[in-house]
Amino acid sequence: MQLPEISKKELALLRSLSTRGGRKHSGCCRCEGVRAVRELLDKAPGSVKFIAGTPRGFEAFKEIPEKSRNISEETLADITETVNSQGIVAVAETPDFAAGTPAGPFILALDQLNDPGNFGTIARTFRAIGGAELWYTKGSVDPWCDKAIRSGLGAQFSLRLRRFENLEELVSAAADFGFKQTFIADPHDGESCFTAPGLFDKSVIVIGSEANGVTCHPAGSRNVIIPMPGDYESLNAAQAATVLLLEHVRRTTTN
Amino acid sequence: MQLPEISKKELALLRSLSTRGGRKHSGCCRCEGVRAVRELLDKAPGSVKFIAGTPRGFEAFKEIPEKSRNISEETLADITETVNSQGIVAVAETPDFAAGTPAGPFILALDQLNDPGNFGTIARTFRAIGGAELWYTKGSVDPWCDKAIRSGLGAQFSLRLRRFENLEELVSAAADFGFKQTFIADPHDGESCFTAPGLFDKSVIVIGSEANGVTCHPAGSRNVIIPMPGDYESLNAAQAATVLLLEHVRRTTTN
Repeated sequence: MQLPEISKKELALLRSLSTRGGRKHSGCCRCEGVRAVRELLDKAPGSVKFIAGTPRGFEAFKEIPEKSRNISEETLADITETVNSQGIVAVAETPDFAAGTPAGPFILALDQLNDPGNFGTIARTFRAIGGAELWYTKGSVDPWCDKAIRSGLGAQFSLRLRRFENLEELVSAAADFGFKQTFIADPHDGESCFTAPGLFDKSVIVIGSEANGVTCHPAGSRNVIIPMPGDYESLNAAQAATVLLLEHVRRTTTN
Repeated sequence: MQLPEISKKELALLRSLSTRGGRKHSGCCRCEGVRAVRELLDKAPGSVKFIAGTPRGFEAFKEIPEKSRNISEETLADITETVNSQGIVAVAETPDFAAGTPAGPFILALDQLNDPGNFGTIARTFRAIGGAELWYTKGSVDPWCDKAIRSGLGAQFSLRLRRFENLEELVSAAADFGFKQTFIADPHDGESCFTAPGLFDKSVIVIGSEANGVTCHPAGSRNVIIPMPGDYESLNAAQAATVLLLEHVRRTTTN
Protein backbone atom coordinates (compact mmCIF):
# COMPACT_ATOMS: atom_id res chain seq x y z
CA MET A 1 0.00 0.00 0.00
CA GLN A 2 1.29 3.42 -0.94
CA LEU A 3 1.01 5.69 2.08
CA PRO A 4 0.61 9.44 1.77
CA GLU A 5 3.70 11.42 2.73
CA ILE A 6 3.50 13.40 5.93
CA SER A 7 2.46 16.98 5.12
CA LYS A 8 4.41 20.07 6.08
CA LYS A 9 1.67 21.05 8.51
CA GLU A 10 1.70 17.64 10.17
CA LEU A 11 5.46 17.73 10.36
CA ALA A 12 5.33 21.14 12.02
CA LEU A 13 2.84 19.83 14.57
CA LEU A 14 4.94 16.74 15.25
CA ARG A 15 7.98 18.91 15.74
CA SER A 16 6.19 21.34 18.05
CA LEU A 17 5.21 18.56 20.46
CA SER A 18 8.73 18.20 21.82
CA THR A 19 8.01 21.12 24.16
CA ARG A 20 5.44 21.56 26.88
CA GLY A 21 4.37 24.84 25.27
CA GLY A 22 3.79 23.12 21.94
CA ARG A 23 1.73 20.39 23.58
CA LYS A 24 -0.34 22.92 25.48
CA HIS A 25 -0.93 25.03 22.39
CA SER A 26 -2.22 22.16 20.26
CA GLY A 27 -3.68 19.97 23.01
CA CYS A 28 -1.76 17.06 21.51
CA CYS A 29 1.11 14.81 22.45
CA ARG A 30 3.32 12.42 20.56
CA CYS A 31 3.72 8.78 21.25
CA GLU A 32 6.81 6.92 20.06
CA GLY A 33 7.56 3.26 19.65
CA VAL A 34 5.67 0.17 18.59
CA ARG A 35 4.23 -0.81 21.93
CA ALA A 36 3.13 2.71 22.89
CA VAL A 37 1.45 3.23 19.51
CA ARG A 38 -0.34 -0.12 19.89
CA GLU A 39 -1.57 0.91 23.32
CA LEU A 40 -2.80 4.21 21.90
CA LEU A 41 -4.63 2.50 19.02
CA ASP A 42 -6.14 0.00 21.41
CA LYS A 43 -7.24 2.32 24.19
CA ALA A 44 -7.81 5.72 22.62
CA PRO A 45 -8.21 5.22 18.87
CA GLY A 46 -10.47 8.23 18.54
CA SER A 47 -7.77 10.59 19.75
CA VAL A 48 -5.26 9.69 17.02
CA LYS A 49 -4.53 12.56 14.61
CA PHE A 50 -2.03 10.67 12.47
CA ILE A 51 0.74 8.09 12.66
CA ALA A 52 4.06 8.75 10.98
CA GLY A 53 6.28 5.80 10.30
CA THR A 54 9.10 4.52 8.19
CA PRO A 55 8.63 1.27 6.26
CA ARG A 56 10.65 -0.40 9.03
CA GLY A 57 8.33 1.07 11.66
CA PHE A 58 5.17 -0.23 9.99
CA GLU A 59 6.62 -3.72 9.67
CA ALA A 60 5.70 -4.34 13.32
CA PHE A 61 2.01 -3.91 12.50
CA LYS A 62 -0.04 -6.64 10.86
CA GLU A 63 -2.30 -4.04 9.33
CA ILE A 64 -1.29 -0.51 8.50
CA PRO A 65 -3.35 1.64 10.88
CA GLU A 66 -5.67 4.33 9.57
CA LYS A 67 -4.31 7.85 9.20
CA SER A 68 -0.83 6.53 8.58
CA ARG A 69 1.77 8.68 6.87
CA ASN A 70 5.14 7.90 5.41
CA ILE A 71 8.15 9.64 6.93
CA SER A 72 11.80 9.19 6.06
CA GLU A 73 14.30 7.83 8.57
CA GLU A 74 16.24 11.09 8.33
CA THR A 75 13.26 13.31 9.06
CA LEU A 76 12.14 11.10 11.92
CA ALA A 77 15.63 11.08 13.44
CA ASP A 78 15.68 14.85 13.10
CA ILE A 79 12.49 15.45 15.08
CA THR A 80 12.70 12.82 17.80
CA GLU A 81 15.35 12.47 20.45
CA THR A 82 15.24 8.71 20.74
CA VAL A 83 18.58 7.20 19.88
CA ASN A 84 17.22 3.88 18.70
CA SER A 85 13.89 4.92 17.28
CA GLN A 86 11.54 2.10 16.35
CA GLY A 87 10.54 4.06 13.26
CA ILE A 88 7.05 4.99 14.38
CA VAL A 89 5.46 7.96 16.14
CA ALA A 90 1.82 8.89 16.57
CA VAL A 91 0.25 12.25 17.27
CA ALA A 92 -2.82 12.16 19.48
CA GLU A 93 -5.04 14.55 21.33
CA THR A 94 -4.11 14.51 24.99
CA PRO A 95 -6.98 12.90 26.87
CA ASP A 96 -8.77 15.21 29.27
CA PHE A 97 -10.22 13.73 32.44
CA ALA A 98 -11.49 16.81 34.15
CA ALA A 99 -13.96 15.18 36.46
CA GLY A 100 -16.19 12.20 37.05
CA THR A 101 -16.43 9.62 39.78
CA PRO A 102 -13.04 7.98 40.27
CA ALA A 103 -12.82 4.34 39.24
CA GLY A 104 -11.22 1.63 41.34
CA PRO A 105 -10.65 1.20 45.05
CA PHE A 106 -7.87 3.77 45.40
CA ILE A 107 -6.23 6.75 43.76
CA LEU A 108 -2.50 6.86 43.16
CA ALA A 109 -1.18 10.40 43.61
CA LEU A 110 2.23 11.64 42.50
CA ASP A 111 3.34 14.80 44.28
CA GLN A 112 5.85 16.88 42.31
CA LEU A 113 7.39 13.78 40.85
CA ASN A 114 9.74 15.27 38.34
CA ASP A 115 11.49 12.38 36.66
CA PRO A 116 9.77 11.41 33.39
CA GLY A 117 11.19 7.88 33.45
CA ASN A 118 9.81 7.28 36.93
CA PHE A 119 6.45 8.80 36.05
CA GLY A 120 6.18 6.56 33.00
CA THR A 121 7.28 3.45 34.87
CA ILE A 122 4.75 4.09 37.61
CA ALA A 123 1.99 4.63 35.03
CA ARG A 124 2.88 1.33 33.37
CA THR A 125 2.89 -0.61 36.62
CA PHE A 126 -0.34 0.99 37.76
CA ARG A 127 -1.97 0.02 34.48
CA ALA A 128 -0.58 -3.50 34.82
CA ILE A 129 -2.23 -4.04 38.19
CA GLY A 130 -5.52 -2.77 36.80
CA GLY A 131 -5.37 0.73 38.29
CA ALA A 132 -7.25 3.67 36.83
CA GLU A 133 -6.89 6.98 38.66
CA LEU A 134 -3.41 8.46 38.44
CA TRP A 135 -3.49 11.96 39.85
CA TYR A 136 -0.59 14.35 40.19
CA THR A 137 0.31 17.82 41.37
CA LYS A 138 1.71 20.82 39.58
CA GLY A 139 5.48 20.63 39.71
CA SER A 140 5.43 17.06 38.45
CA VAL A 141 6.87 16.31 35.04
CA ASP A 142 4.36 16.50 32.18
CA PRO A 143 3.16 12.87 31.85
CA TRP A 144 2.54 13.52 28.16
CA CYS A 145 6.14 14.41 27.35
CA ASP A 146 8.04 12.09 25.04
CA LYS A 147 10.11 10.36 27.67
CA ALA A 148 7.23 9.75 30.07
CA ILE A 149 5.16 8.21 27.29
CA ARG A 150 8.08 6.08 26.14
CA SER A 151 8.80 4.87 29.67
CA GLY A 152 5.10 4.28 30.21
CA LEU A 153 4.78 2.42 26.90
CA GLY A 154 1.68 4.53 26.40
CA ALA A 155 0.00 3.31 29.62
CA GLN A 156 -1.11 6.93 30.01
CA PHE A 157 -3.81 6.28 27.42
CA SER A 158 -5.34 3.57 29.61
CA LEU A 159 -5.44 5.66 32.77
CA ARG A 160 -7.32 8.67 33.99
CA LEU A 161 -4.69 11.31 34.67
CA ARG A 162 -5.72 14.43 36.52
CA ARG A 163 -3.57 17.37 37.50
CA PHE A 164 -4.06 19.52 40.62
CA GLU A 165 -2.53 22.78 41.83
CA ASN A 166 -1.25 21.15 45.00
CA LEU A 167 -1.65 18.12 47.23
CA GLU A 168 -4.35 19.68 49.44
CA GLU A 169 -6.57 20.31 46.43
CA LEU A 170 -5.98 16.80 45.20
CA VAL A 171 -6.86 15.23 48.54
CA SER A 172 -9.88 17.47 48.86
CA ALA A 173 -11.16 16.52 45.40
CA ALA A 174 -10.73 12.85 46.27
CA ALA A 175 -12.60 13.29 49.55
CA ASP A 176 -15.52 14.80 47.61
CA PHE A 177 -15.90 11.42 45.95
CA GLY A 178 -15.62 9.50 49.21
CA PHE A 179 -11.91 8.73 48.99
CA LYS A 180 -11.33 9.99 52.49
CA GLN A 181 -8.18 8.26 53.70
CA THR A 182 -4.77 9.53 52.67
CA PHE A 183 -1.59 7.49 53.00
CA ILE A 184 1.81 9.06 52.43
CA ALA A 185 4.65 6.78 51.39
CA ASP A 186 7.46 7.77 53.72
CA PRO A 187 11.00 6.39 53.69
CA HIS A 188 11.58 6.96 57.41
CA ASP A 189 8.56 6.10 59.53
CA GLY A 190 4.95 5.05 59.51
CA GLU A 191 2.80 1.95 59.58
CA SER A 192 4.15 -1.00 57.61
CA CYS A 193 2.62 -1.09 54.12
CA PHE A 194 2.23 -4.83 54.61
CA THR A 195 -0.13 -4.48 57.55
CA ALA A 196 -1.66 -0.97 57.50
CA PRO A 197 -5.43 -1.45 57.63
CA GLY A 198 -7.54 0.12 54.91
CA LEU A 199 -4.56 0.98 52.77
CA PHE A 200 -6.54 0.46 49.57
CA ASP A 201 -9.99 1.12 50.91
CA LYS A 202 -11.27 4.26 49.16
CA SER A 203 -7.92 5.88 49.76
CA VAL A 204 -5.36 8.15 48.18
CA ILE A 205 -1.81 6.82 48.18
CA VAL A 206 0.76 9.57 47.74
CA ILE A 207 4.27 9.17 46.39
CA GLY A 208 6.52 12.24 46.60
CA SER A 209 9.64 13.17 44.72
CA GLU A 210 12.83 11.26 45.45
CA ALA A 211 14.73 14.36 46.46
CA ASN A 212 12.13 16.07 48.62
CA GLY A 213 9.36 13.64 49.50
CA VAL A 214 5.83 15.02 49.61
CA THR A 215 5.09 18.73 49.70
CA CYS A 216 2.79 18.51 52.74
CA HIS A 217 0.97 16.12 55.02
CA PRO A 218 -2.74 16.81 54.57
CA ALA A 219 -4.82 16.74 57.75
CA GLY A 220 -5.63 13.21 58.83
CA SER A 221 -3.10 11.59 56.52
CA ARG A 222 -1.13 8.58 57.75
CA ASN A 223 2.42 7.61 56.88
CA VAL A 224 3.19 4.19 55.51
CA ILE A 225 6.67 2.79 55.24
CA ILE A 226 8.14 -0.03 53.23
CA PRO A 227 10.12 -1.89 55.89
CA MET A 228 13.82 -2.17 55.04
CA PRO A 229 15.74 -4.39 57.45
CA GLY A 230 19.11 -3.45 55.92
CA ASP A 231 18.85 0.05 57.40
CA TYR A 232 19.78 1.57 54.08
CA GLU A 233 17.65 3.96 52.12
CA SER A 234 17.37 2.47 48.74
CA LEU A 235 14.12 2.36 46.83
CA ASN A 236 13.52 5.06 44.28
CA ALA A 237 10.03 6.45 43.70
CA ALA A 238 9.20 3.94 40.97
CA GLN A 239 10.33 0.97 43.05
CA ALA A 240 8.42 2.21 46.08
CA ALA A 241 5.29 2.58 43.95
CA THR A 242 5.81 -0.92 42.57
CA VAL A 243 5.96 -2.42 46.05
CA LEU A 244 2.82 -0.59 47.19
CA LEU A 245 0.89 -1.45 44.04
CA LEU A 246 1.81 -5.10 44.27
CA GLU A 247 0.78 -5.10 47.92
CA HIS A 248 -2.66 -4.20 46.62
CA VAL A 249 -2.51 -7.20 44.31
CA ARG A 250 -1.38 -9.41 47.15
CA ARG A 251 -4.23 -8.34 49.38
CA THR A 252 -6.85 -8.82 46.69
CA THR A 253 -5.52 -12.14 45.39
CA THR A 254 -4.72 -13.91 48.64
CA ASN A 255 -7.51 -12.85 50.99
CA MET B 1 45.30 19.72 54.15
CA GLN B 2 47.44 19.56 51.06
CA LEU B 3 46.71 16.32 49.23
CA PRO B 4 49.24 14.63 47.01
CA GLU B 5 48.48 14.85 43.31
CA ILE B 6 47.43 11.66 41.61
CA SER B 7 50.48 10.02 40.04
CA LYS B 8 50.82 9.07 36.40
CA LYS B 9 50.74 5.40 37.33
CA GLU B 10 47.58 5.81 39.37
CA LEU B 11 45.99 7.80 36.58
CA ALA B 12 46.83 5.07 34.10
CA LEU B 13 45.26 2.47 36.40
CA LEU B 14 42.16 4.60 36.88
CA ARG B 15 41.84 5.03 33.15
CA SER B 16 42.30 1.32 32.44
CA LEU B 17 39.38 0.38 34.68
CA SER B 18 36.81 1.61 32.18
CA THR B 19 37.10 -1.72 30.37
CA ARG B 20 36.45 -5.26 31.48
CA GLY B 21 39.93 -6.22 30.25
CA GLY B 22 41.51 -3.51 32.35
CA ARG B 23 39.59 -4.60 35.43
CA LYS B 24 40.54 -8.22 34.91
CA HIS B 25 44.19 -7.40 34.36
CA SER B 26 44.55 -5.38 37.58
CA GLY B 27 41.92 -7.11 39.69
CA CYS B 28 40.55 -3.69 40.53
CA CYS B 29 37.41 -1.67 39.84
CA ARG B 30 36.51 1.97 40.18
CA CYS B 31 33.76 3.37 42.28
CA GLU B 32 32.30 6.80 41.52
CA GLY B 33 30.19 9.15 43.54
CA VAL B 34 29.93 10.18 47.16
CA ARG B 35 27.55 7.51 48.36
CA ALA B 36 29.32 4.65 46.59
CA VAL B 37 32.70 5.76 47.94
CA ARG B 38 31.22 5.98 51.45
CA GLU B 39 29.86 2.44 51.12
CA LEU B 40 33.26 1.23 49.96
CA LEU B 41 35.05 2.93 52.87
CA ASP B 42 32.51 1.54 55.29
CA LYS B 43 32.31 -2.04 54.06
CA ALA B 44 35.60 -2.82 52.39
CA PRO B 45 38.15 -0.25 53.60
CA GLY B 46 41.02 -2.68 53.22
CA SER B 47 40.45 -3.01 49.50
CA VAL B 48 40.87 0.70 48.72
CA LYS B 49 43.94 1.47 46.63
CA PHE B 50 43.40 5.24 46.45
CA ILE B 51 40.66 7.85 46.19
CA ALA B 52 40.91 10.61 43.62
CA GLY B 53 38.80 13.68 44.15
CA THR B 54 38.46 17.32 43.32
CA PRO B 55 38.16 19.84 46.17
CA ARG B 56 34.42 19.85 45.44
CA GLY B 57 34.30 16.05 45.70
CA PHE B 58 36.01 15.96 49.10
CA GLU B 59 33.65 18.59 50.50
CA ALA B 60 31.06 15.85 51.02
CA PHE B 61 33.35 14.07 53.49
CA LYS B 62 33.76 15.27 57.06
CA GLU B 63 37.26 13.84 57.14
CA ILE B 64 39.47 13.40 54.13
CA PRO B 65 39.84 9.62 53.78
CA GLU B 66 43.25 7.99 53.82
CA LYS B 67 45.00 7.43 50.49
CA SER B 68 43.27 10.44 48.99
CA ARG B 69 44.70 12.13 45.94
CA ASN B 70 43.96 15.41 44.28
CA ILE B 71 42.68 15.34 40.71
CA SER B 72 41.60 18.24 38.53
CA GLU B 73 38.02 18.56 37.28
CA GLU B 74 39.32 18.36 33.71
CA THR B 75 41.28 15.16 34.22
CA LEU B 76 38.40 13.56 36.09
CA ALA B 77 35.94 14.52 33.36
CA ASP B 78 38.33 13.08 30.82
CA ILE B 79 38.53 9.63 32.38
CA THR B 80 34.99 9.07 33.60
CA GLU B 81 31.84 8.92 31.55
CA THR B 82 29.51 10.36 34.15
CA VAL B 83 27.93 13.55 32.93
CA ASN B 84 27.41 15.09 36.35
CA SER B 85 30.31 13.66 38.24
CA GLN B 86 30.27 14.22 41.98
CA GLY B 87 33.99 14.88 41.86
CA ILE B 88 35.12 11.69 43.54
CA VAL B 89 36.21 8.24 42.38
CA ALA B 90 37.90 5.43 44.28
CA VAL B 91 39.96 2.53 42.99
CA ALA B 92 39.56 -0.70 44.93
CA GLU B 93 40.51 -4.32 44.63
CA THR B 94 37.52 -6.28 43.41
CA PRO B 95 36.39 -8.51 46.27
CA ASP B 96 36.70 -12.20 45.61
CA PHE B 97 34.16 -14.54 47.18
CA ALA B 98 35.21 -17.83 45.73
CA ALA B 99 33.61 -20.09 48.28
CA GLY B 100 32.35 -20.41 51.82
CA THR B 101 29.01 -21.25 53.32
CA PRO B 102 26.36 -18.89 51.92
CA ALA B 103 24.92 -16.41 54.41
CA GLY B 104 21.21 -15.71 54.78
CA PRO B 105 18.09 -17.72 54.10
CA PHE B 106 18.22 -17.54 50.31
CA ILE B 107 20.47 -16.81 47.36
CA LEU B 108 19.48 -14.32 44.70
CA ALA B 109 20.68 -15.47 41.28
CA LEU B 110 20.83 -13.30 38.15
CA ASP B 111 20.93 -15.31 34.95
CA GLN B 112 22.55 -13.45 32.02
CA LEU B 113 21.20 -10.17 33.27
CA ASN B 114 22.92 -7.77 30.94
CA ASP B 115 21.76 -4.32 31.91
CA PRO B 116 24.23 -2.64 34.30
CA GLY B 117 21.58 -0.27 35.68
CA ASN B 118 19.30 -3.16 36.55
CA PHE B 119 22.13 -5.19 38.05
CA GLY B 120 23.13 -2.24 40.24
CA THR B 121 19.56 -1.50 41.28
CA ILE B 122 18.98 -5.11 42.25
CA ALA B 123 22.23 -5.18 44.23
CA ARG B 124 21.15 -2.04 46.11
CA THR B 125 17.72 -3.38 46.93
CA PHE B 126 19.12 -6.74 47.99
CA ARG B 127 21.55 -5.00 50.32
CA ALA B 128 18.71 -2.84 51.66
CA ILE B 129 16.66 -5.85 52.71
CA GLY B 130 19.68 -7.36 54.40
CA GLY B 131 20.57 -9.87 51.67
CA ALA B 132 24.03 -11.28 51.25
CA GLU B 133 24.49 -13.82 48.46
CA LEU B 134 24.12 -12.33 44.98
CA TRP B 135 25.18 -14.93 42.46
CA TYR B 136 25.16 -14.57 38.67
CA THR B 137 25.94 -16.42 35.51
CA LYS B 138 28.41 -15.75 32.73
CA GLY B 139 26.73 -13.58 30.15
CA SER B 140 25.58 -11.14 32.79
CA VAL B 141 27.02 -7.65 32.78
CA ASP B 142 30.15 -7.23 34.90
CA PRO B 143 28.77 -6.06 38.27
CA TRP B 144 32.03 -4.18 38.84
CA CYS B 145 31.70 -1.97 35.77
CA ASP B 146 31.26 1.77 36.35
CA LYS B 147 27.57 1.93 35.66
CA ALA B 148 26.63 -1.09 37.76
CA ILE B 149 28.57 0.31 40.72
CA ARG B 150 27.00 3.74 40.25
CA SER B 151 23.49 2.28 40.04
CA GLY B 152 24.24 0.05 42.99
CA LEU B 153 25.66 2.97 44.98
CA GLY B 154 28.45 0.57 45.85
CA ALA B 155 26.13 -2.04 47.39
CA GLN B 156 28.36 -4.57 45.65
CA PHE B 157 30.92 -4.06 48.42
CA SER B 158 28.40 -5.22 51.05
CA LEU B 159 27.37 -8.38 49.21
CA ARG B 160 28.98 -11.66 48.33
CA LEU B 161 28.97 -11.79 44.55
CA ARG B 162 29.85 -15.06 42.87
CA ARG B 163 30.00 -15.81 39.17
CA PHE B 164 29.20 -19.18 37.58
CA GLU B 165 29.61 -20.61 34.10
CA ASN B 166 25.89 -21.29 33.81
CA LEU B 167 22.71 -21.70 35.81
CA GLU B 168 23.10 -25.45 36.35
CA GLU B 169 26.49 -24.96 37.96
CA LEU B 170 25.11 -22.20 40.14
CA VAL B 171 22.17 -24.27 41.32
CA SER B 172 24.42 -27.25 41.90
CA ALA B 173 26.86 -25.18 43.99
CA ALA B 174 23.94 -23.87 46.05
CA ALA B 175 22.61 -27.38 46.59
CA ASP B 176 26.01 -28.43 47.94
CA PHE B 177 25.40 -25.97 50.77
CA GLY B 178 21.86 -27.17 51.38
CA PHE B 179 20.09 -24.53 49.28
CA LYS B 180 18.10 -27.15 47.48
CA GLN B 181 14.99 -25.40 46.20
CA THR B 182 15.10 -23.30 43.06
CA PHE B 183 12.44 -20.78 42.11
CA ILE B 184 12.40 -19.14 38.70
CA ALA B 185 10.70 -15.75 38.38
CA ASP B 186 8.49 -16.18 35.34
CA PRO B 187 6.32 -13.50 33.74
CA HIS B 188 3.77 -15.97 32.40
CA ASP B 189 2.94 -18.76 34.79
CA GLY B 190 3.77 -20.35 38.11
CA GLU B 191 2.80 -20.22 41.76
CA SER B 192 1.99 -16.76 43.10
CA CYS B 193 5.02 -15.24 44.77
CA PHE B 194 2.68 -14.12 47.54
CA THR B 195 1.71 -17.62 48.56
CA ALA B 196 4.37 -20.06 47.26
CA PRO B 197 5.49 -22.10 50.27
CA GLY B 198 9.17 -22.16 51.14
CA LEU B 199 10.04 -19.39 48.72
CA PHE B 200 12.81 -18.10 50.97
CA ASP B 201 13.60 -21.30 52.80
CA LYS B 202 17.15 -22.26 51.85
CA SER B 203 16.33 -21.49 48.26
CA VAL B 204 17.76 -19.97 45.11
CA ILE B 205 15.59 -17.32 43.46
CA VAL B 206 16.47 -16.79 39.83
CA ILE B 207 15.82 -13.66 37.78
CA GLY B 208 16.54 -13.90 34.07
CA SER B 209 17.18 -11.25 31.47
CA GLU B 210 14.34 -9.03 30.35
CA ALA B 211 14.62 -10.03 26.75
CA ASN B 212 15.11 -13.76 27.11
CA GLY B 213 14.17 -14.87 30.62
CA VAL B 214 16.27 -17.60 32.19
CA THR B 215 18.63 -19.77 30.18
CA CYS B 216 17.26 -23.06 31.52
CA HIS B 217 14.95 -24.59 34.12
CA PRO B 218 17.15 -26.73 36.36
CA ALA B 219 15.65 -30.06 37.43
CA GLY B 220 13.16 -29.67 40.25
CA SER B 221 12.87 -25.91 39.88
CA ARG B 222 9.49 -24.25 40.32
CA ASN B 223 8.14 -21.16 38.57
CA VAL B 224 6.85 -18.24 40.58
CA ILE B 225 4.86 -15.43 39.09
CA ILE B 226 4.10 -11.92 40.25
CA PRO B 227 0.34 -11.75 39.68
CA MET B 228 -0.67 -8.93 37.36
CA PRO B 229 -4.43 -8.44 37.12
CA GLY B 230 -4.12 -5.88 34.30
CA ASP B 231 -3.06 -8.62 31.88
CA TYR B 232 -0.19 -6.51 30.69
CA GLU B 233 3.44 -7.47 30.89
CA SER B 234 5.09 -4.66 32.64
CA LEU B 235 7.69 -5.21 35.31
CA ASN B 236 11.30 -5.03 34.29
CA ALA B 237 13.89 -7.28 35.93
CA ALA B 238 14.74 -4.76 38.65
CA GLN B 239 11.09 -4.19 39.53
CA ALA B 240 10.39 -7.92 39.61
CA ALA B 241 13.37 -8.43 41.91
CA THR B 242 12.13 -5.60 44.14
CA VAL B 243 8.72 -7.23 44.53
CA LEU B 244 10.20 -10.63 45.35
CA LEU B 245 12.72 -9.21 47.80
CA LEU B 246 10.08 -7.18 49.60
CA GLU B 247 7.89 -10.26 49.79
CA HIS B 248 10.69 -11.77 51.83
CA VAL B 249 10.57 -8.74 54.12
CA ARG B 250 6.81 -9.03 54.39
CA ARG B 251 6.96 -12.70 55.36
CA THR B 252 9.64 -12.13 57.97
CA THR B 253 8.15 -8.96 59.47
CA THR B 254 4.49 -9.93 59.63
CA ASN B 255 4.57 -13.61 60.58
